[in-house]
Amino acid sequence: MAEIQEIKESLSVNLQQIIPLLERYKLEDDYAHPNDMGELQTLLDDLHPADVADLLEALPIEDRLNLWEFVKADRDGEILLEVSDAVRQTLIADMDSSELLAAAEQLDADEMADLAPDLPKDVLQDLMESLDSQNRERLQSTLSYPDNAVGALMDFDIVTIREDITLEVALRYLRRLGKLPDLTDKLFVVDRNDILLGILPLKRMVVSDLNAAVIDVMAVDAVYFHPEDIADEAATAFERYDLVTAPVVDANNKLVGRITVDEVMDYIRDESESDMLSMAGLREEEDFFASVWKSVQNRWAWLAINLITALVASRVIGLFEGSIQKIVALAALMPIVAGIGGNSGNQTTTMIVRGLALGQIAAHNMQSLIKKELGVALINGVFWGGMLGVIAFALYGNYKLGLVMMAAMTLNLLLAAIMGVTIPLIMTKLGRDPAVGSSVLITAVTDSGGFFIFLGLATIFLM
Amino acid sequence: MAEIQEIKESLSVNLQQIIPLLERYKLEDDYAHPNDMGELQTLLDDLHPADVADLLEALPIEDRLNLWEFVKADRDGEILLEVSDAVRQTLIADMDSSELLAAAEQLDADEMADLAPDLPKDVLQDLMESLDSQNRERLQSTLSYPDNAVGALMDFDIVTIREDITLEVALRYLRRLGKLPDLTDKLFVVDRNDILLGILPLKRMVVSDLNAAVIDVMAVDAVYFHPEDIADEAATAFERYDLVTAPVVDANNKLVGRITVDEVMDYIRDESESDMLSMAGLREEEDFFASVWKSVQNRWAWLAINLITALVASRVIGLFEGSIQKIVALAALMPIVAGIGGNSGNQTTTMIVRGLALGQIAAHNMQSLIKKELGVALINGVFWGGMLGVIAFALYGNYKLGLVMMAAMTLNLLLAAIMGVTIPLIMTKLGRDPAVGSSVLITAVTDSGGFFIFLGLATIFLM
Repeated sequence: MAEIQEIKESLSVNLQQIIPLLERYKLEDDYAHPNDMGELQTLLDDLHPADVADLLEALPIEDRLNLWEFVKADRDGEILLEVSDAVRQTLIADMDSSELLAAAEQLDADEMADLAPDLPKDVLQDLMESLDSQNRERLQSTLSYPDNAVGALMDFDIVTIREDITLEVALRYLRRLGKLPDLTDKLFVVDRNDILLGILPLKRMVVSDLNAAVIDVMAVDAVYFHPEDIADEAATAFERYDLVTAPVVDANNKLVGRITVDEVMDYIRDESESDMLSMAGLREEEDFFASVWKSVQNRWAWLAINLITALVASRVIGLFEGSIQKIVALAALMPIVAGIGGNSGNQTTTMIVRGLALGQIAAHNMQSLIKKELGVALINGVFWGGMLGVIAFALYGNYKLGLVMMAAMTLNLLLAAIMGVTIPLIMTKLGRDPAVGSSVLITAVTDSGGFFIFLGLATIFLM
Repeated sequence: MAEIQEIKESLSVNLQQIIPLLERYKLEDDYAHPNDMGELQTLLDDLHPADVADLLEALPIEDRLNLWEFVKADRDGEILLEVSDAVRQTLIADMDSSELLAAAEQLDADEMADLAPDLPKDVLQDLMESLDSQNRERLQSTLSYPDNAVGALMDFDIVTIREDITLEVALRYLRRLGKLPDLTDKLFVVDRNDILLGILPLKRMVVSDLNAAVIDVMAVDAVYFHPEDIADEAATAFERYDLVTAPVVDANNKLVGRITVDEVMDYIRDESESDMLSMAGLREEEDFFASVWKSVQNRWAWLAINLITALVASRVIGLFEGSIQKIVALAALMPIVAGIGGNSGNQTTTMIVRGLALGQIAAHNMQSLIKKELGVALINGVFWGGMLGVIAFALYGNYKLGLVMMAAMTLNLLLAAIMGVTIPLIMTKLGRDPAVGSSVLITAVTDSGGFFIFLGLATIFLM
């Protein structure tokens, strides 16, 4: 009797098997141990393209390129699709034009479009010329949409049937096809002009009377998209309505493609990763084994911005050098006021950014939000500020210094609350991603603001 | 001829229709305008549970509870599942025991388990008693797994067939069932003891010869899980192998449930959101309209930790008060050194946390990683430190101060690089989530370290 086999593989297990083989490959003359190399070849051939991609990403450049040589040429294309952008560039740099063309030609038009930005111009040109007119049109159409449009995510693996046949005839047609594209969970019902009329889920098909007509069994209340729809909306709809595939139609309701849950999952994952990276000021994902110089470039812009905001804060302190000279304790206490303001402001911003992303924040509830944030800031300011005031008094024996500390903390937290709400809203109004820039701006305001408030109050009340 | 209708609804469109109706409901005597209320009822009934959940989340408490009254009792259960934890608590607090029991009883065992933590003890007790033994066992089993285990995500909507029948017989059986559970893309093939033998994708079923036996058509190289597997692994496998559903089996290969792509997508989304929230020091998602006091509690812990690290940094500055009194410029320049170190360290940590999550970082490449990060830190330190040195010289006319600035920047960036690599690795070794605590620790080290290095160098070379 057949026994089911698990196909999950773990990266660390694969690495443990591959690394010693690669080491031997480097140490000895190439092909000195054909057995080893045969073993490596077999190991690789058995792995899913995504697993090979993981291996390539986890290896330093030299080992990576050695391993890449062992990947069968007819799998190059799908593996290039799976690796990260940074690693893909290192692999492509190692291939000549004919290898690249051969790799790209194995792919579907929508996959070619994913690869296209990394291909040299002449290879892309040759690729276009090698395609038949339908595929060339598909590739051009996919390339014409921005990365965050449904048109860039969709594929063309659609199975259509006509509305006026019976399920029996439809099943006979499917059996003639012999194989359905990956993730096919429904057929698209179209008229003779390819206008979408409805969808026929396979799971409805297999439970229905075979003599029924497609038109009587199909669903007409379906989720469908247009190529120019924003991918975020598609992602929300897929999560909300638990979709596996959905049709994409043009302005005339003509079926042009489909969008699948795996593309949507990749998109969600990429978005959350790029949010995380850009919050830390990284322009893009880094290849762990890229040169120091490439990494410096990736992190450069953020440090430059940071330097400017830090310089502004430094000049604010500079305004009060006289006061600091008189009460040097101010220098030790001021970073506390600035730091806590920054953290508190970032908490507020994170909440607001999330609410904006979920569409929960709108004009009608702005006022109650600001009121609430000011309330939170007031409580935290009085409590933590009061505690710090006591500590300052204990350290420096100056009760006025303690009061200034408490007042400055409270005011800076209120400033942080106002900025934490308004900055992401303004960024959104200006059409920018609030997840990225807001945190820099908040910290800049609460640093400079914190120094100014604390040192200003000290100058007024303590000098 | 049938015409396809789109079912996507946008939250803002729904809000625009609902809010005026709710306003009128509040202003006038209840049921004064039965037409309005009928309109509200119809609007709500037409919406998908997830859309109703969105509406509830976007409304202030009073409006939310008013709207909740209009939700038909038989939809309470599914809508409670869709809303965020914080909002669910406000809704549950508004329901009495019998309403809650009725709502929970509409759900499947796996869904009851999602709701269980928020139910009052006595309601959960009554619910258990109301179930038949199979469902009680399922609920207890689901509750027994931690949130991040496959056992907590799985459901029991499995359709099984025997291996020794033909496809024709199998299809007849399906037609007798009449309806397949949501997201069913494959049947699970089991023997008489419910041992999993293989899977039969519907898309393979509809293209195969009806006289073939299930055993000859089914796939045996399948991805399957155990209830105690970690959900992250399941998420990776779903993304990697483009799965829609997968079987879950116990230690004896007996089929116990299935896991579906919608649960996996929710899990991925929740994880990335909770990472984002905890990086900003928020314990959990906030209900935007929760009381100020609830929000204060949510943000409290982080501010307390932050206060302690800020106090430590402040005491480091306190050590050098004598030097600051002599050269007050030090007070203005020191936050720059600390701030840039913190940002640079956080960039490194973000990269490492990502690499750890993807399994790309292991013993064999640690050394090359540290070398690379030190290289990046050295270049940034000399370049940006040099630039700041020149600015410091220009501002204060003291070339030694400029050199101290440059040296301190470089040293603090090197410190940030070492800490940025080692802290997340140590956190992982200790079994903690490096995404959460690392950033606090890094900033603490680069703040105190930056002040110490800069003021220390200044005391040695400038006094």
